[in-house]
Amino acid sequence: MKRILITGPSGFIGSHCLQQLLQHGADIHAVSRTGGSAQDGGVTWHVRDLRDAAQAAAIVTEIKPDLLLHGAWIATPGIYSSSPENIDWLHSTTAMAVAFGTAGGKRFVGIGTSAEYDPHERPCVEDETPIRPTTVYGKCKAATWLAVQAAAQHHGFSAAWGRLFLPYGPGDSPRRLVPSVLDALIGGRPIRTTEGLQQRDFIYAPDAADLLVKLLFSDMTGAFNVGTGSSSTVRSVIEYLAADCGRPDLVEFGAMKPAPGDPKMLVADMRKVRQQLGWTATTILRVGLDSVLAETRAERAHAQEQMRGS
Amino acid sequence: MKRILITGPSGFIGSHCLQQLLQHGADIHAVSRTGGSAQDGGVTWHVRDLRDAAQAAAIVTEIKPDLLLHGAWIATPGIYSSSPENIDWLHSTTAMAVAFGTAGGKRFVGIGTSAEYDPHERPCVEDETPIRPTTVYGKCKAATWLAVQAAAQHHGFSAAWGRLFLPYGPGDSPRRLVPSVLDALIGGRPIRTTEGLQQRDFIYAPDAADLLVKLLFSDMTGAFNVGTGSSSTVRSVIEYLAADCGRPDLVEFGAMKPAPGDPKMLVADMRKVRQQLGWTATTILRVGLDSVLAETRAERAHAQEQMRGS
Repeated sequence: MKRILITGPSGFIGSHCLQQLLQHGADIHAVSRTGGSAQDGGVTWHVRDLRDAAQAAAIVTEIKPDLLLHGAWIATPGIYSSSPENIDWLHSTTAMAVAFGTAGGKRFVGIGTSAEYDPHERPCVEDETPIRPTTVYGKCKAATWLAVQAAAQHHGFSAAWGRLFLPYGPGDSPRRLVPSVLDALIGGRPIRTTEGLQQRDFIYAPDAADLLVKLLFSDMTGAFNVGTGSSSTVRSVIEYLAADCGRPDLVEFGAMKPAPGDPKMLVADMRKVRQQLGWTATTILRVGLDSVLAETRAERAHAQEQMRGS
Repeated sequence: MKRILITGPSGFIGSHCLQQLLQHGADIHAVSRTGGSAQDGGVTWHVRDLRDAAQAAAIVTEIKPDLLLHGAWIATPGIYSSSPENIDWLHSTTAMAVAFGTAGGKRFVGIGTSAEYDPHERPCVEDETPIRPTTVYGKCKAATWLAVQAAAQHHGFSAAWGRLFLPYGPGDSPRRLVPSVLDALIGGRPIRTTEGLQQRDFIYAPDAADLLVKLLFSDMTGAFNVGTGSSSTVRSVIEYLAADCGRPDLVEFGAMKPAPGDPKMLVADMRKVRQQLGWTATTILRVGLDSVLAETRAERAHAQEQMRGS
C-alpha cells in the first residue's frame, strides 16, 4: 500500500484533497500545525510547523512517503499576496522536496497559482504564457516550482504542479469573495464594490481537489492548470448571489476602484489537462454557487435554532 | 562612502568584479571561504562558507552593505550544472537577500546565467525568451532571481540580475574550453571534439565584470544579459587558437557526439543593455583570445625559466 503524505490538510483546498484521498484506501499521513479531528479516521496525524524548514524536512524523512501532496502555504486573505512568509514557504518546500527525494519518494505534487502567470487578455496556457508574477506570493510559488523541479531532476522523482485559479465552495474563508458577499446579503448590509468586470476562472473546491488528487496518482510531469476553462466576471457572481437572496438593491457596483495591478482576466486554458489527464470540471458555476447558498442557509438556520434553544 | 559587499570575489568573474570595484573608492567588503591575498589592498576580507544559509545571512547582517554584488555560486566545471549544491545556493542567496533587505540594503545585483533561458535558434531577449531551464543549475538560478525579486518587493530594495553567457579570459578554470584547448595545443596533444557547430556568445571576463559593476552602480531593475550580442561557433574558437599555435593538425572535429540537450545557439540579445545602460562589450573575440594566448605563453615561458633556474 502506498504511503501518502499530505500537507495543509486543514486548509481550504487541502481539506477537500484529504477527503478525496480517504476514498483511495492508502496509508495516509497528514501534517499540520493543529493536528486533525476524530472524524478523520484512517489518517495518521502529525503536528509540525512546516514554515520551519528543518521541521519540514525532518517529518518527510521520518514518514518516508511514496507520494507527497503539498498544499501547505500561507493563504490568509488580505495578507498572503505580499507576506514575507511566502519566502519561508519557498525555503521549507524546497527542503521538503530534497528530503523527499533523499528518502526515496516517487511522486511530488505541489499547489501553484494562477498568480505565477503574466496575465494577458487570453486564457493562460501552461507552457506558453510567460511566468512573470507580480506579487511576492506569485514569485515565491514560481520559484518553488523551479526548485522542486531541480530536486526532482537530481533525485529522480516525478513532479507536477497544479496552478490553482479561483476556488470557492465549502470551507472557504469568511473573508473571501463568495462567503463575504453572502454574509452581507443575508445580514442586509450594503456591498460597495468595483465594477467587477475582471474575468476569473471560478472552480468549485471539491473539483479542484479532484484534479489535484488525480494528478497525484498520475505520472504526468510539469505544470497543470487547476481551473474550469470558463470565464466569469466577478460582477456576474455577485449579481447571481444577490438575485438569489432577493437583495440586488444592496449591491453598489463601481463604488470602489479596482486594486492597482489587478488583472483584467485570469482564466485557465484547460486543453493540456483534458488531453493529458482526461479531466474536466464537473460543477458549473451556478450549481456550485447554489450549493454554497444552500449550505450557508442551512448553517444559519441551524445557528438560529441553537440560539432559540439556549 | 557607500559600503559594498561582494561575494565570490575569488571566483573567475568575481575576481574581475573585485578589481573593477577597487577603482571606485568605496568601502569594499569581500566574503569567501578562503579569504583574500595581501595584494587586494583596500578590501576588508571575511571568511565564511556562504553555502550555509545561516552564515550567509549573518555576515550580511553584520556588514550591513548598501550594495551587494552576489557572485558566489558553485561553478566547478563538469559538476556545477547538475550538482545538488545549486539548491543550497538558492537557499543561501534567498537568505542573504532577506537579511540584506532587513538590514536596510539598497541595491542587490546577482549573477544569473544564459542557462535560465529556453534556447531557441534566436538570440535570447531578457523579457521575451521563455525562462525554461533544463539543468539543475539553470533551474536554481532562475528560482533564485524570483526569490530575490520577492525579497526586493517586500523590503523595498532595488534588484537586478545579470545573465552571464560564455565568459573566457584571465583566471579561467583550466578545465574550461579555452584553457583546456590551449593546454593541449601547447603540449602537442590531440584534441578530439564535436563538430563544434553550436553558436555561443563568448564574453571577455573583464568586459563581463565591467557590465556587472556598471549594473551595480545603476538603478536599473530587472534581468540583463551579460554578453556581447555576437555569435561564434565553438569550432571557430578552437580553429583560431589552433591556427595561432600552428597546430591545426591536432584538432579532430566530429570525433565526439554533442552532449544531449546542448543547445545549438545560446547568444545574447544586447539591445536592453545598450538602451538602458548604454553599455557594449569593448573586447572583440579575436582580441580577447590573442590576450589569453599571450598571457598563457608568458606564463609557460616564466615557468620554464624557473625550472631552468632551479
